[in-house]
Amino acid sequence: MSEASEQPALRVVGFIRSTLRSAQDAPRQGREGAPDAWLEVKPEFGRALHRLAAGDELWVISWLHEADRDVLEVHPRDDANTPLTGVFATRSQHRPNPLGLHRVTVRAVDGTRLRIGPIEAVDGTPVVDVKIVIGNGSDAR
Amino acid sequence: MSEASEQPALRVVGFIRSTLRSAQDAPRQGREGAPDAWLEVKPEFGRALHRLAAGDELWVISWLHEADRDVLEVHPRDDANTPLTGVFATRSQHRPNPLGLHRVTVRAVDGTRLRIGPIEAVDGTPVVDVKIVIGNGSDAR
Repeated sequence: MSEASEQPALRVVGFIRSTLRSAQDAPRQGREGAPDAWLEVKPEFGRALHRLAAGDELWVISWLHEADRDVLEVHPRDDANTPLTGVFATRSQHRPNPLGLHRVTVRAVDGTRLRIGPIEAVDGTPVVDVKIVIGNGSDAR
Repeated sequence: MSEASEQPALRVVGFIRSTLRSAQDAPRQGREGAPDAWLEVKPEFGRALHRLAAGDELWVISWLHEADRDVLEVHPRDDANTPLTGVFATRSQHRPNPLGLHRVTVRAVDGTRLRIGPIEAVDGTPVVDVKIVIGNGSDAR
């Protein structure tokens, strides 16, 4: 992609299958009481899972398909008492590209399905990338 | 987006301006000697930066536009002695959606430009999202 091509199209590589059915039910963060869930990877991307195993720590990047992409400022945590803040200074799902960033542990691998958690993404959330956590877990590229 | 709509289009919200000109020059990880760089946010997304300040820790998600999106397995770190591994179990830039995940510190804010680092992304790399680091820095949503 050149700089002139500014609408790269994502490929959905899988979906979250969760008991969480709506954003209203979901905790704001995975560490705030979220359940485990299944990540169902599409068969055509199954080879990308090779050598993943129970116990691995992953970054899962989802596409928060229910978000409002035109919101640029929010009151963090939907609390009107918090100051209006640019979405890039928050973890609001509402943002120009509603990518969800979830750190999870692999509980089990079943073919092209991963049992992962904890994860606050609701059932049906598309997944666009998976990366192993490296280093101290807070590092990244 | 419904599950049936599986090609969400990203909006490029800015670009990396770096002294790193090519992937050959770039370290593999930000913590492996990468420089600071500018993140130039497009003016129309400037409000999303409101309240960001020097010292903030951010996740920057880039679009690694030089990557090969059809690669599903690699030898990690381009070392033929490492076992062939699914890209989701690696940090290879080659993957179905070449999203780069960079943890950086804000050095300075200059209008809609952020001085950030360290970051191994090369000059001209599109940026698609920015999120504040929360909690212990390894947590995420």
